[in-house]
Amino acid sequence: MGISERAQISFLDSGEPPSTTKVSAKLGQSLMSAAHEAGIAIEATCGGRGRCRSCRVKILDGEVPPATLQDEVQIGREGVRERFRLSCQTKLINDCSVLIAPPRTEAGHQILSTASWAQANSQLILDSGVKKHVATIAVPSGALDPASDCEAFLEALKEQWHGDVPLLLLKKIPEVIRSNGGVITATTFADELISIEPGDTSASKYGMAFDIGTTTIAATLLDLDTGEQRAAVRMMNPQATYGADILSRIAFAQFDAKKQTRLRSSILTAINTLIHDACREADIAATQIYKIVITGNTCMHHIVVGLDPSHLGMAPYNPVTRSSLVIGARELPLKSAPNARICFLPIVAGFVGADTVAAALATRIHESDEVRLLVDIGTNGEVVLGSREKLIACSAPAGPTFEGGQVEHGMRASLGAIEGVSFGADVSCRVVGNVPPIGICGSGLIDTVAKLLDAGLVDPSGVLGQPECKNVSPPLAARLSELEDSVAFVLASAQESGHGNEITITQKDLRQLQLAKAAILCAIEVLQSVMKVPTGQVSELMLAGGFGNYIAIPSALRIALLPALPEDRITYVGNAALTGAQLALVSEAERKEADVIARSIEHVELADHPDFEQLFVTALGFPEPDIPAAKHEDMTVNEKPNSAPSPALRKCTCC
Amino acid sequence: MGISERAQISFLDSGEPPSTTKVSAKLGQSLMSAAHEAGIAIEATCGGRGRCRSCRVKILDGEVPPATLQDEVQIGREGVRERFRLSCQTKLINDCSVLIAPPRTEAGHQILSTASWAQANSQLILDSGVKKHVATIAVPSGALDPASDCEAFLEALKEQWHGDVPLLLLKKIPEVIRSNGGVITATTFADELISIEPGDTSASKYGMAFDIGTTTIAATLLDLDTGEQRAAVRMMNPQATYGADILSRIAFAQFDAKKQTRLRSSILTAINTLIHDACREADIAATQIYKIVITGNTCMHHIVVGLDPSHLGMAPYNPVTRSSLVIGARELPLKSAPNARICFLPIVAGFVGADTVAAALATRIHESDEVRLLVDIGTNGEVVLGSREKLIACSAPAGPTFEGGQVEHGMRASLGAIEGVSFGADVSCRVVGNVPPIGICGSGLIDTVAKLLDAGLVDPSGVLGQPECKNVSPPLAARLSELEDSVAFVLASAQESGHGNEITITQKDLRQLQLAKAAILCAIEVLQSVMKVPTGQVSELMLAGGFGNYIAIPSALRIALLPALPEDRITYVGNAALTGAQLALVSEAERKEADVIARSIEHVELADHPDFEQLFVTALGFPEPDIPAAKHEDMTVNEKPNSAPSPALRKCTCC
Repeated sequence: MGISERAQISFLDSGEPPSTTKVSAKLGQSLMSAAHEAGIAIEATCGGRGRCRSCRVKILDGEVPPATLQDEVQIGREGVRERFRLSCQTKLINDCSVLIAPPRTEAGHQILSTASWAQANSQLILDSGVKKHVATIAVPSGALDPASDCEAFLEALKEQWHGDVPLLLLKKIPEVIRSNGGVITATTFADELISIEPGDTSASKYGMAFDIGTTTIAATLLDLDTGEQRAAVRMMNPQATYGADILSRIAFAQFDAKKQTRLRSSILTAINTLIHDACREADIAATQIYKIVITGNTCMHHIVVGLDPSHLGMAPYNPVTRSSLVIGARELPLKSAPNARICFLPIVAGFVGADTVAAALATRIHESDEVRLLVDIGTNGEVVLGSREKLIACSAPAGPTFEGGQVEHGMRASLGAIEGVSFGADVSCRVVGNVPPIGICGSGLIDTVAKLLDAGLVDPSGVLGQPECKNVSPPLAARLSELEDSVAFVLASAQESGHGNEITITQKDLRQLQLAKAAILCAIEVLQSVMKVPTGQVSELMLAGGFGNYIAIPSALRIALLPALPEDRITYVGNAALTGAQLALVSEAERKEADVIARSIEHVELADHPDFEQLFVTALGFPEPDIPAAKHEDMTVNEKPNSAPSPALRKCTCC
Repeated sequence: MGISERAQISFLDSGEPPSTTKVSAKLGQSLMSAAHEAGIAIEATCGGRGRCRSCRVKILDGEVPPATLQDEVQIGREGVRERFRLSCQTKLINDCSVLIAPPRTEAGHQILSTASWAQANSQLILDSGVKKHVATIAVPSGALDPASDCEAFLEALKEQWHGDVPLLLLKKIPEVIRSNGGVITATTFADELISIEPGDTSASKYGMAFDIGTTTIAATLLDLDTGEQRAAVRMMNPQATYGADILSRIAFAQFDAKKQTRLRSSILTAINTLIHDACREADIAATQIYKIVITGNTCMHHIVVGLDPSHLGMAPYNPVTRSSLVIGARELPLKSAPNARICFLPIVAGFVGADTVAAALATRIHESDEVRLLVDIGTNGEVVLGSREKLIACSAPAGPTFEGGQVEHGMRASLGAIEGVSFGADVSCRVVGNVPPIGICGSGLIDTVAKLLDAGLVDPSGVLGQPECKNVSPPLAARLSELEDSVAFVLASAQESGHGNEITITQKDLRQLQLAKAAILCAIEVLQSVMKVPTGQVSELMLAGGFGNYIAIPSALRIALLPALPEDRITYVGNAALTGAQLALVSEAERKEADVIARSIEHVELADHPDFEQLFVTALGFPEPDIPAAKHEDMTVNEKPNSAPSPALRKCTCC
């Protein structure tokens, strides 16, 4: 079994003479490393750290991988839009052809000259707000002037900084100024003193960006001076023990301070662990982290900040605050990074959180001339629709299905996860790490169901079973397994799997997927209805989410997770919430822009829309082949998706 | 035994007809209560709480008791200088004659009309910086606007206050705005939000002033709206376990963070206890304390704030900071008064602390046209000399002798302490509480030694013993008791004392007193030398200190604790440091004035003065009768004051 975990890249070199080289590379591998392995010279002046532009490429054909922060920093926003990427930062997601940026021809210089890059870059200036001031202090040794340690400290810094010394740092002054011959480094954030260190530490200035999802926490550690990503870490949200989705967690801890504290402790411990892990990966001291930007949905935000989330679970679902917050690490408290200022991005509403704001910031939807859709798929998904004229947003509570939750053999997109399938005479699975599979992740589930629909093994109402026509290859048909009161499709037999048990997709899993995808699709449709934007007028659908791996867009369209747009109008933006947090991390201007975005997005309460219920029920179904989801109304309210259908033979839908 | 604990008051009533009534009253009793007991009508519109001016009197004759904060508030600074006092606030300290302020005569109205009082009062406006804002909040119940609890809170307050809500208070908003029908009270200090309470609590606004001495901690609890003193509490500084004076405590904890923490914990516990005690006495909740002003010497300041005092014990004895500080109670931390802002008064130098600044503030020495002396007597005494033109100051490390420390039968001026003596044919003691004595306090020690000098039982070099001439009454002579290698003077026999043991003054006690008083006198003389101000040019010597009871000025002059000034140029200012802290508590203008004073006082390092050693040695001696101390140079450096003298008969000094 097993389909390829690899894809084809055509590298085009426009040099003299022009050449094209076809290379097969592993999905997830960087384009630069794939080129180097094939003996294709791509310059990497900075050593592949995303700190120069020498390795730039242009994606000529194929799905364009999401831009990283380093792409934004080095290539600029316009360059990114024009499909330029740094090959050292860009991971292979599908077959593509790539132009190696011509460094020596005149034409190349015209396009990619320093001047034009600088112009494009003017949109993202690295200004994290963190500054280091090195000074040498004349320690009082007998003179009356300066008459105190603090005055000596302020005197030495006066050309660079002046302000109040907070109590905690005041306490440190006597010792710090008496070590290292009086050489000290004072670090400020937004002109406030946040750290005093002995010696010259000006070379080390780091920050972290966090996206705290209901199911997954993802974080990166960046060099604030260069924007270079030094570490990327992620872990499951340990609060999952207390409920898979937000409403369960709110219910668990509602008006119960002790349980809120328990939820909070678990997430703070996780953040501390990730800081520790990232610092180890980057080989830096956590004391050198001076700024942390946290994004996440409103509930996660409230729990981390320590605000009571109880009222998020009751109409009108209002948050305690929507403003951005800056809190000292010791005040939060976050022990692992004691010197950091923790910046929480602002919130739109109880269920449209800071993650949506961050994703909007990352995708520049608020600057778009045309109407775009931003769809953030996660346990607590959100949808934003609009342009620079107006933005509206709503929540799309998909639940944990896309992250492997509430699916019998579901798992995250980690080693051993089936992330894609192809149906020929039989099934081939693409497994993360190319090992025997141990489960199925969100993209694998979507892909499988799309293929089952095509094969006629699932009908438009979501019933899994043998079609009447029996126009199915025997090996595929043989994979249908009758259970006590239901039926399942076997993706991997006990022999094929990594743990000796069958890996199946059950009817119940299908129902979960239907609920999840309906939440997303219905949210999109409600927003389109509110703004009176037909699908044809949507110029781009930007697909965000912390899936880990990318879902196949044709499959997403096949199951009507997304509205029936042409494939080329759908782009991946990766974990845009995390990218937005990174932008706010390296740029105070971007962090302030997030406030503007948050206040400009209008919140739409799904349940208040008159057609909501009908739209949701319709969205549960799958399209007939070549029939878009919006026109597919086979199911009615009475056909509850959770009621187990009969595994018996039924009318064929494929012929 | 026992001399009277009472004094005589002549009350003059200038009514029709004028009358004079002589009254005997207990020392420490208020003038108003003494008058009322004798049937003399003094109006007390406010019930004797210092909140009106109806009970005002003028001290025509006798020592003028120190002005209280209420005198300053109600009568004003000029009135206080003109010897006006509130009889309800003024404690009897000695025989005096008192004019009952004529409320009905024209002349009286001329002097005491509201207009002139108001003018005088313009110097002290009650403006603690603490403000309460009551608002009713429309709790979000379904509308989208306001879209968060915090926005609803800010919206309700916007006419009264706007600013940032600190994290701690943000956490409280959801609960507070949903109780008491949305009525809340927001308290600010210096425009910063410090508390949010449900309901209307605008009537309760309290603060506390602390003077943290090396030996004693004194505090008062005031109503910030009226300045009324609602409680006065004091206790021994529990750090005494770790050393009687500052240098011992610094040595104990120098460069030892654990021991510093131990010192700090003991003082923070004491402060918490005093807050608790004061709140119980005033019957208020500690949550209603919003501002605390703390003064004290530099070492106590550093320990309370949590700054390393190690460098205070080494040249150049510089503090960590000299600036005034405002710290949240939770940050310090001070658990008893969680809502309070803790304001630390500024410092002049390592050994001229915030207590000196506070005492200067209270006495207005910085506004004086003439040169004045401010002498704060305490374990860590300080002296300030100057006028509005210039102020200089130095420390006078007297040690704990004046507070009963390092004296064999020494004790604080509390119940059972001998606080004064009179020598007739035999000794009569005045004992606090008029009970059998159990020890001797500072003022008693000074008084006793003065009388022993007069009686010839102590010679100018400080040797205790029978004079050659034997010109001493037999009962007095019989009180000399030969010890193993020394001699003692018995103040109370085992039968007379309250604990069945003799109460004596030993030769060693005398030596301690000499060291202590020489520290004060020498400090004064060095400052006079630096500023070239002969004693005759000192218009007033203001005697401050937390003695508890007042020392007899003739006795203080007799032992040359003070320079030889006419008695009427010496005034009591009580615990001026505490009064200064109270001023800063009720008035932000006064608190800011303290910063100006602190920066204007020039610090003189005693040991740097070329004549210091000679002046100190000279100051150890006692004056010959009628010979001022400055001219008394019987002792030389070789006659070490600590070497025990022979108890044998010696040359008479009295005849």
